Amino acid sequence: MKTVPGSAAEMLGALRAGQRTASDWTEQSLARIEARNGALKVWSHVAADSARATARALDAKPPVGPLQGMPFGVKDVILTEQAPTGYNSPIYQDFFPRIDAACVKLLRAAGAVMLGKTETVEFAAAFRLAPTHNPLDPARTPGGSSSGSAAAVADGHVPVALGTQTGGSLIRPASYCGVFAMKPTWSRVSRDGIRLYAPTLDTLGWFARSVEDLGLVYDALVPDRLPRRSRAIAGARIALCHTPFAQRAEPSTRAGLTQAAEALARAGAQVSTLTLPPEFDDIDRVHHIIMRAEGRSAFLPEYRADLPLLNEHFRALVENSDGYSDADLRQALDRAAVLRARFDRLAAPFDAVLTYSVPGEAPLGLGNNGSADFNSLWTLLHVPCVNIPAFTGPSGMPVGLTVLGPRFADTPVLEMAAAIHPVLAEARAGAQVGG
Amino acid sequence: MKTVPGSAAEMLGALRAGQRTASDWTEQSLARIEARNGALKVWSHVAADSARATARALDAKPPVGPLQGMPFGVKDVILTEQAPTGYNSPIYQDFFPRIDAACVKLLRAAGAVMLGKTETVEFAAAFRLAPTHNPLDPARTPGGSSSGSAAAVADGHVPVALGTQTGGSLIRPASYCGVFAMKPTWSRVSRDGIRLYAPTLDTLGWFARSVEDLGLVYDALVPDRLPRRSRAIAGARIALCHTPFAQRAEPSTRAGLTQAAEALARAGAQVSTLTLPPEFDDIDRVHHIIMRAEGRSAFLPEYRADLPLLNEHFRALVENSDGYSDADLRQALDRAAVLRARFDRLAAPFDAVLTYSVPGEAPLGLGNNGSADFNSLWTLLHVPCVNIPAFTGPSGMPVGLTVLGPRFADTPVLEMAAAIHPVLAEARAGAQVGG
Repeated sequence: MKTVPGSAAEMLGALRAGQRTASDWTEQSLARIEARNGALKVWSHVAADSARATARALDAKPPVGPLQGMPFGVKDVILTEQAPTGYNSPIYQDFFPRIDAACVKLLRAAGAVMLGKTETVEFAAAFRLAPTHNPLDPARTPGGSSSGSAAAVADGHVPVALGTQTGGSLIRPASYCGVFAMKPTWSRVSRDGIRLYAPTLDTLGWFARSVEDLGLVYDALVPDRLPRRSRAIAGARIALCHTPFAQRAEPSTRAGLTQAAEALARAGAQVSTLTLPPEFDDIDRVHHIIMRAEGRSAFLPEYRADLPLLNEHFRALVENSDGYSDADLRQALDRAAVLRARFDRLAAPFDAVLTYSVPGEAPLGLGNNGSADFNSLWTLLHVPCVNIPAFTGPSGMPVGLTVLGPRFADTPVLEMAAAIHPVLAEARAGAQVGG
Repeated sequence: MKTVPGSAAEMLGALRAGQRTASDWTEQSLARIEARNGALKVWSHVAADSARATARALDAKPPVGPLQGMPFGVKDVILTEQAPTGYNSPIYQDFFPRIDAACVKLLRAAGAVMLGKTETVEFAAAFRLAPTHNPLDPARTPGGSSSGSAAAVADGHVPVALGTQTGGSLIRPASYCGVFAMKPTWSRVSRDGIRLYAPTLDTLGWFARSVEDLGLVYDALVPDRLPRRSRAIAGARIALCHTPFAQRAEPSTRAGLTQAAEALARAGAQVSTLTLPPEFDDIDRVHHIIMRAEGRSAFLPEYRADLPLLNEHFRALVENSDGYSDADLRQALDRAAVLRARFDRLAAPFDAVLTYSVPGEAPLGLGNNGSADFNSLWTLLHVPCVNIPAFTGPSGMPVGLTVLGPRFADTPVLEMAAAIHPVLAEARAGAQVGG
């Protein structure tokens, strides 16, 4: 894998070689944030003092771990010992419990430096959107709900930021902001200390500027650090999956997926099509039932303790405005389990599945986070997903594609994403030269 | 339902009638703890000051909720704003993040008074057992891992205490201590702020001294407060389930279940037998794979950040001493989902299923928590369970039985437990008079 300039991997190498210090890196991040946060509104809290102190302490002793000195951002629904957690909710102003979520504790144990909290949609769920602008076009949304984390990585504030996904809250903003993101297999990474919406769906994930960096974070968060090998595209079995919702993708996005398939075929991949059978047709409804029915319990504490500050959206959710019954939830949970096993079997013959990350480019305005239509099914299916920047849309904004595989195929998915991305980047460069 | 003397329901009635205050009740609890905790080692932390302040504040204004003034204990793996959380781990001495778990926030919103933290097995998982003695015989274990919560309720320190169950950590100690406990349907109550072992299994639950009290707590923790109706035993369809592990129950326990069935039949119930088909025979192995494989991620933060203070048991767990593969976990998750749907269909024709809570009485000594053989399957199946004290074993210690139903039948299970318990209590009283 070729290390990307400006990536965490490159900087970690410079640190290990004694060419840079953790303090240098932290100051560089803080300066970039200082310069950009006023306009882009990426961070809800910058923990400059504790970050500087941590970096100094790291510089003063032998390296503690593989992410030594790496600054990272944390979506503001994840508890951090060194910064308040606000959930973008008026209920939690100045809420500052001194505890790190498991994922934050793990990154810090690997030597990383917690830089602050990134803007989120309220409770990573709905209603109050993040105030964050898309760094590539401030008139557009960065996507949500992990809005600030995607923008922080895209705009070079930090090489890595943590987020969460219940529907499409990692993959969609990664696509809109032109960065990489990983949603690992459900239950692979502890969610301890993360505010959950729907326990059957919620998954921690992260943003980075290369697949290699995604892998470095993965290694810090999971028990098994499996070696990742280089995969050749020649001979790789790649399945295009248009999902039951292909008609919701914009024509340019559909064309982009087709062109990506052609580029991969030219590079020697065995490209075929994976059509999901009809039992997957209403998978978005299965997802919706679980998310909303489980969400009723998630927001009950605020409903009972803080009702005057809880907005109407969450009140209606707790009061079951959807009208889903216990039987609806039970059937949805059982359907989801059947579809998971079924999809794993469908995906097993392939080295990777390639599919849409989004319908198209980031929408204009900050009042529309965009659609999770191409993400919710994969969240429900618990499969590992990686967004790779793939092509540009009609307005010149990035559009990503998702590389995925069956549950627990996190390592092969990272390997195949690393192999696929350069082929698409080269094809794009060729097309631009040609065009 | 007849209100039990000394129960929360009775005392809440006295408060509502103006005959008692929250401060009275809190002082009564604190005095009982003061008198008993030295010998029984029930509490890891008593939050006397904050409890008194809370009670005074409650007494000074109109009632805030249905549990107004009710003192409760919290298993020390659940975060509390007013008391430190230690997990019975040397890593977390003096660990005091200022945040309430969702369940604690909900009870407090209902007017209940958080009295302190109860002793637990290390991380509610293994190795360091609670130092707690069984109040009914201090030479015996109260069971684990919710050891202190069960003992606190049994010994009259508090009417209600919160616990958790991954295997049998609620139902077993309830049986050993002769109290009631409820494990609701998985995902029905938010686990936010609870230290998890295995997300697919862990369930919050609670102890109380009557079924009525279990229901009062249930109402405070779930979105829908459904009315509970009185059920007649005459005509009720009750299925005895001996589970695939009946041979692990002691002869006196098997006889106790048979006698319970006879008493229910005499009272007019239609008692039949529910035999689980052969596909359930290895359900304990399915449970073990999920618990251990998911537990690897749960304890990874301490493994990476606090290794010198992490004992060998958890090190081996993270290092996969069981040797379970990703494929083992995936297959176990899928098997569990199939068994859940299958069990719901098997249980649907009945008003309640009645089964063992434990193999027998609480073991002698504090070095053996007892067996979860009759609990782990129900935890895996996500079904609501209520332990009711049912009979006494050969040493005069209590033995409970479990009333359960299909997923989301929490309300019917509470109703049937309330109907079944008096029949068994009366039969026992009759047998004692007769004998």
